[in-house]
Amino acid sequence: MTTIDPVSLRRELHRHPEPAWREFETTARIVDRLQDVDLDALYVGPDAIDGESRLAVPDDAELDRWFDRARDAGADPDVLDQLEGGYTGAVAVVERGDGPTVGLRVDVDGLPREESDADDHLPAAEGFRSETGESMHACGHDAHAAIGVGVAEAIAESDDFRGTLKVFFQPAEEVIGGGKSMAKSEHIRDVDYLLATHVGLDHPTGTVVAGVEDFLAVRHLEATFTGEPAHAGAEPEAGRNAIQALGAAIQNAYAIPRHSDGPTRVNIGVVEGGTAANIVAEEVRLVAEVRGQTTDLMHYMSDSVERVFHSAADMHDCEVEIEVGAEAPSAESDDELREIVGSVAETVEGVDRVVDEAGLGGSEDATFLMKEVQENGGLAAYVGVGTDHPGGHHTATFDVDEPTIEHGIDTLAGAIEEIATRNV
Amino acid sequence: MTTIDPVSLRRELHRHPEPAWREFETTARIVDRLQDVDLDALYVGPDAIDGESRLAVPDDAELDRWFDRARDAGADPDVLDQLEGGYTGAVAVVERGDGPTVGLRVDVDGLPREESDADDHLPAAEGFRSETGESMHACGHDAHAAIGVGVAEAIAESDDFRGTLKVFFQPAEEVIGGGKSMAKSEHIRDVDYLLATHVGLDHPTGTVVAGVEDFLAVRHLEATFTGEPAHAGAEPEAGRNAIQALGAAIQNAYAIPRHSDGPTRVNIGVVEGGTAANIVAEEVRLVAEVRGQTTDLMHYMSDSVERVFHSAADMHDCEVEIEVGAEAPSAESDDELREIVGSVAETVEGVDRVVDEAGLGGSEDATFLMKEVQENGGLAAYVGVGTDHPGGHHTATFDVDEPTIEHGIDTLAGAIEEIATRNV
Amino acid sequence: MTTIDPVSLRRELHRHPEPAWREFETTARIVDRLQDVDLDALYVGPDAIDGESRLAVPDDAELDRWFDRARDAGADPDVLDQLEGGYTGAVAVVERGDGPTVGLRVDVDGLPREESDADDHLPAAEGFRSETGESMHACGHDAHAAIGVGVAEAIAESDDFRGTLKVFFQPAEEVIGGGKSMAKSEHIRDVDYLLATHVGLDHPTGTVVAGVEDFLAVRHLEATFTGEPAHAGAEPEAGRNAIQALGAAIQNAYAIPRHSDGPTRVNIGVVEGGTAANIVAEEVRLVAEVRGQTTDLMHYMSDSVERVFHSAADMHDCEVEIEVGAEAPSAESDDELREIVGSVAETVEGVDRVVDEAGLGGSEDATFLMKEVQENGGLAAYVGVGTDHPGGHHTATFDVDEPTIEHGIDTLAGAIEEIATRNV
Amino acid sequence: MTTIDPVSLRRELHRHPEPAWREFETTARIVDRLQDVDLDALYVGPDAIDGESRLAVPDDAELDRWFDRARDAGADPDVLDQLEGGYTGAVAVVERGDGPTVGLRVDVDGLPREESDADDHLPAAEGFRSETGESMHACGHDAHAAIGVGVAEAIAESDDFRGTLKVFFQPAEEVIGGGKSMAKSEHIRDVDYLLATHVGLDHPTGTVVAGVEDFLAVRHLEATFTGEPAHAGAEPEAGRNAIQALGAAIQNAYAIPRHSDGPTRVNIGVVEGGTAANIVAEEVRLVAEVRGQTTDLMHYMSDSVERVFHSAADMHDCEVEIEVGAEAPSAESDDELREIVGSVAETVEGVDRVVDEAGLGGSEDATFLMKEVQENGGLAAYVGVGTDHPGGHHTATFDVDEPTIEHGIDTLAGAIEEIATRNV
Repeated sequence: MTTIDPVSLRRELHRHPEPAWREFETTARIVDRLQDVDLDALYVGPDAIDGESRLAVPDDAELDRWFDRARDAGADPDVLDQLEGGYTGAVAVVERGDGPTVGLRVDVDGLPREESDADDHLPAAEGFRSETGESMHACGHDAHAAIGVGVAEAIAESDDFRGTLKVFFQPAEEVIGGGKSMAKSEHIRDVDYLLATHVGLDHPTGTVVAGVEDFLAVRHLEATFTGEPAHAGAEPEAGRNAIQALGAAIQNAYAIPRHSDGPTRVNIGVVEGGTAANIVAEEVRLVAEVRGQTTDLMHYMSDSVERVFHSAADMHDCEVEIEVGAEAPSAESDDELREIVGSVAETVEGVDRVVDEAGLGGSEDATFLMKEVQENGGLAAYVGVGTDHPGGHHTATFDVDEPTIEHGIDTLAGAIEEIATRNV
Repeated sequence: MTTIDPVSLRRELHRHPEPAWREFETTARIVDRLQDVDLDALYVGPDAIDGESRLAVPDDAELDRWFDRARDAGADPDVLDQLEGGYTGAVAVVERGDGPTVGLRVDVDGLPREESDADDHLPAAEGFRSETGESMHACGHDAHAAIGVGVAEAIAESDDFRGTLKVFFQPAEEVIGGGKSMAKSEHIRDVDYLLATHVGLDHPTGTVVAGVEDFLAVRHLEATFTGEPAHAGAEPEAGRNAIQALGAAIQNAYAIPRHSDGPTRVNIGVVEGGTAANIVAEEVRLVAEVRGQTTDLMHYMSDSVERVFHSAADMHDCEVEIEVGAEAPSAESDDELREIVGSVAETVEGVDRVVDEAGLGGSEDATFLMKEVQENGGLAAYVGVGTDHPGGHHTATFDVDEPTIEHGIDTLAGAIEEIATRNV
Repeated sequence: MTTIDPVSLRRELHRHPEPAWREFETTARIVDRLQDVDLDALYVGPDAIDGESRLAVPDDAELDRWFDRARDAGADPDVLDQLEGGYTGAVAVVERGDGPTVGLRVDVDGLPREESDADDHLPAAEGFRSETGESMHACGHDAHAAIGVGVAEAIAESDDFRGTLKVFFQPAEEVIGGGKSMAKSEHIRDVDYLLATHVGLDHPTGTVVAGVEDFLAVRHLEATFTGEPAHAGAEPEAGRNAIQALGAAIQNAYAIPRHSDGPTRVNIGVVEGGTAANIVAEEVRLVAEVRGQTTDLMHYMSDSVERVFHSAADMHDCEVEIEVGAEAPSAESDDELREIVGSVAETVEGVDRVVDEAGLGGSEDATFLMKEVQENGGLAAYVGVGTDHPGGHHTATFDVDEPTIEHGIDTLAGAIEEIATRNV
Repeated sequence: MTTIDPVSLRRELHRHPEPAWREFETTARIVDRLQDVDLDALYVGPDAIDGESRLAVPDDAELDRWFDRARDAGADPDVLDQLEGGYTGAVAVVERGDGPTVGLRVDVDGLPREESDADDHLPAAEGFRSETGESMHACGHDAHAAIGVGVAEAIAESDDFRGTLKVFFQPAEEVIGGGKSMAKSEHIRDVDYLLATHVGLDHPTGTVVAGVEDFLAVRHLEATFTGEPAHAGAEPEAGRNAIQALGAAIQNAYAIPRHSDGPTRVNIGVVEGGTAANIVAEEVRLVAEVRGQTTDLMHYMSDSVERVFHSAADMHDCEVEIEVGAEAPSAESDDELREIVGSVAETVEGVDRVVDEAGLGGSEDATFLMKEVQENGGLAAYVGVGTDHPGGHHTATFDVDEPTIEHGIDTLAGAIEEIATRNV
């Protein structure tokens, strides 16, 4: 009998979103709910991930600020202590006799953006809008975490499952920073089959995508342009203008030629710099990302963007330092798992359409875990669970249609049972 | 007999710089030193300025943050209470019998920038580097304030002065925000002669410029570009990219045609926007300024910049809101005062060169006070006091060569006595 | 018995390339060679195409210049007279009893570019480099024309063919200007099956692609920016600078966001404007094209480019006039024809690899003819004939590996016989 | 008695404008009119200039084209023969006994632009609009030549003049290409006093400017960007796009920071490149100029523009070759001559206002001759003769108000007499 209400957990997490590597309260709340599940083991923070492999970790001041906030919000101090320094996430283990090890990966972080307070935005209307203000669950990871807990409970209580289930509650997906740290942890090594999941992706409620494809390889870059300040009225020629370098960088980065081998992407998502209207800007920082259908295409974009940034700096007699941040490879779902997920989904109540495969068009660091399992000889698939979402992913009005959560739990728990049974 | 050491006051202020409208501790320290001067009146904060005429006032949170910092630093609570809400500055009055009213205007605010901690930067080497961290006296207003106090004391103790002296300790010059509020206060109305002063301006120690000219008219603008966020990997076309609008705005603003009627300037000094590498930026803010030798030229630049910003927004299907901020007119020094200042300066110990007139090339809101006095039938001049400064104005290594301070006090006090005597 | 040497015809045409709608000498030479073929009808110029449907026709002066050149070069005056005014191209008809009508479309125009004179460029080394200088067969249409004549002869002499063959020698493909005029001619109406063909496309000699796919929809645009001239030294502000508008247009056109629905393209291929170094440019013209995997994607690019051009004009206070030129839809090869072509190709001597389908990645106005036939209930396929080409398509060192020509004739003639026999 | 009608000569030259180094017909017509003047010597073409010092000479084909046009138009073949190869211009000498040598320099070339055919454009209305079509006297050099002939005649017939007059009819001023060749000719060496002249410059009819100042130093640059062509649809990434490099070059060249030392200028006046809409452009050429109030400022702009062009090429993986073309220094009018010109002008009929000095704001290669004379110990001045001109200099509707011509002749002839008399 299900004692956990995954919808209430989802709303609880939605109220307290935390961005990448700052999922202190989030991890504590997940751990709290897992108390009610008959687990065989639970690894938290540094025990769940390979700390060295974390990518895109914020600076200490930022980590501390969110850590303090979580403490002030009343998160369990015993859990919090383990997470200090940005070692978030958890791995829950259910052992039910002989059989293969099946992994389920869900991600748990929020985005650094404000949430809509419009009356027709359900979380606002029903009182579970973000309370942390500067973060929002605008990509459904609150639902993912709830699905993860729900699947753990379902398998723990299942009479049909023989084998081991590991649920990976992964931090920092939004900055593609956490996938590698879970892929490099010891917990992945004996995983024979891995499922990962995502809600939405423009598929409506009632649809399940058995195998999501077309993960774009992705890389993050941070560039700092440094010039020379000067009084903009008295001596404009004495400056070397980092903001002019930025202007040239923006205009030309987006203009990198499209590639005939497949889709590519480039985005400059954050800019900040300069000190005052009357000072020629000495320093400007930008945060960018590039993607490609293949790793080669991603490298084409990355090389081109670096050339653009260097030329933009030269153009205005500035320097630029470019730091390559997080990145993720591409991956493919295995046919065998896709077939199992599809056949199970067709039996799930509320699921009225099963799509064999569909493209993601974006990137995901679940690919790190998928590749790890596949390279160890295992199989992997990425399962989409449709949801009607009023606003697009990452926007202020994104929301999850909550029946989706049950569809996800039923499909994934069913598939995990079937995978263990078949052990293909 | 001089009881005040202006150099020590300058260093004290240098250690505690505060930016525009946040000169809480600064005002308190100046008031404290003025206790030792035989003043006839001292007006502080709202009594010194016309509050309604303040320009470019920061938001309350920012004001409060600096107010709290000043309180924590131990600034006199009685003074502080008068300044709350960003009503900073002071006017000191010395009355010495019948005679004209002579004004001296000095500005007291710091810049929002970090200070060098290099060993060869004297304030760092000698322990009076900025302690507020995010602000720095990088334009010598610390020396101006010290000169103002020094002149007040010199005139208060002078046997030769007949008339009234008013020293205006003006806030918020760096954002051209404070000049108007002092020009519109009641204290300016009866001023017959006004001197304003600035150290440095690329003139070496030992030089005095009797009349500084060529103040560029100036205007500040703040623009906010608003687009539409979208997932940069999955749906780049769904966004309307405010950072791309910014790129077009930067590139084209600096490219506004030069004007044959005289010098013009444009600078975009601050940019910030976007939320994450993988989100098409929804909002970007920039802070800009334009200048012109005349008000017409400044308007030419302002109109052109507005057209550029609107077109840049249209270009990327974004909106832009432009807010016109502070501005200042141009002004000229009167020959009669310039002549007096020049003749006095030639007698000052340490002054080895007197320049009749020289251009500023920048802007200054002292022009508001100068114009006010001139329109009331009075005379005004802007006096430059040379100083060897290692780094340029507004840079991290700017510093004042301290003998300059005595040159300034002696030249200005001497000129004020002579002006009152001649009453031209 | 073959009396025509298609390789010699190809070299002859290669020596006398003519760009779009100026294929006067080209058409005359093709007609001349067709004298040796047992045709039942031959339509030339205005009788071959629908003159009203010609797109992207150059101005009269340009047409006259090439017409005179062809006359001077000794082209047959009787043929020339029919072509005057830019009505080029021909349709050759072979009737061999009852059976379906099969069409073969080949294009015949050169590109407006110089040809390499390097020693290792075969046409230079062997003396058949372009003699018209400003035009070059840099995309293999010389080989296409030779294949067209060769197929006409092969079918005319075939014992196995029952039905009608129409070979469409289409002008002006490079400007996507001629396809519509042939698709709208009366000759297409009774065509039951249509094959079109292209050599190269990065497939090596010996490869045949049975069905080429992924024709990008395409549109050409010409924009003229108009400003106001001024003396750049004396009064730069008095100008409205069309070259600055061009700069903004270029930078932002290439930066139109990539689209998640599929490939898009944009290119500004020609710019020209301004009069002298010291005059602010009054007028600049550019020639651009946009493409998309679908017509919708092409329209997305076209709309975006128009917005960019208008904003770029506004940015610099200029006007812009945009003229939409030629365009072509996308199309798909029918499975039935693809299957026939593939099976025939496998039997052709020298063909060692048959690819079922492959993407083009570019655009082609053969799609006009394919769509016309398909909409009339017929079938169409676009056949690629591999050739080792040293330089890329459209570059100065492009060349056709000549055995390709025989592969093309054998494959297409064989397929045409088989199509007529099966009459699927 | 004046036998020459300078207004009719001006109109004759206006009808037959020729651009720099192509003044074949122009020189022939001037020589023809000088037949009626009692000259002592007349040097033409290579005898008038130093051929080696010509700057910015067009290529042979262009020279030949205009040479043939002049011959076809019936220009005197004997004169023409001397000018072949672009050796245009003339020096007329009048010797009238002992006395100093006074030079007068006038320029004679047209601009490469079309002329308005509007009804309210006087040359169109009265039938002396440009007949060469692609060139126009849009800067008044037709009037300058007429003034030169008129002054030669006036001095030749003067009873008061003792000394030698040399009138320099200089070619190629508009490309700052002819001044150096006249300054380096033998004729300048013994010139004791030099006057140069220009009509208009925004001064109305009736005004004479005794000494024009503020000649901007100037330099011309030609840049050729070279990339790699590619099919823009099939392989956009294979190209290296010279038009994208151009876009970056334009945007950033105009954005070079203004300089506090004085006026600067930059203009990109001509662009051309690319071959077709569907080819990534391999080559683009631009023609630019930079100016500065001083040679140092001009070099600041030139260095900055070169950096921008190189960075723009790098940005898009292209190469750039920059050729520095013509240039001219700055110069100043001598007080003594200015005083004489001013006092004479006040006596001239029709002159109602004499301005002692005024800025030019542009550039002029008369500075080469002025500097040469000044460096030889002589004096020089540049005289402005006001004229009401409906359109601005260099625009399609520029025109000279013809009474100006008589004002110019009277002022300059009078000043030349007075200079020779005083021999200061």
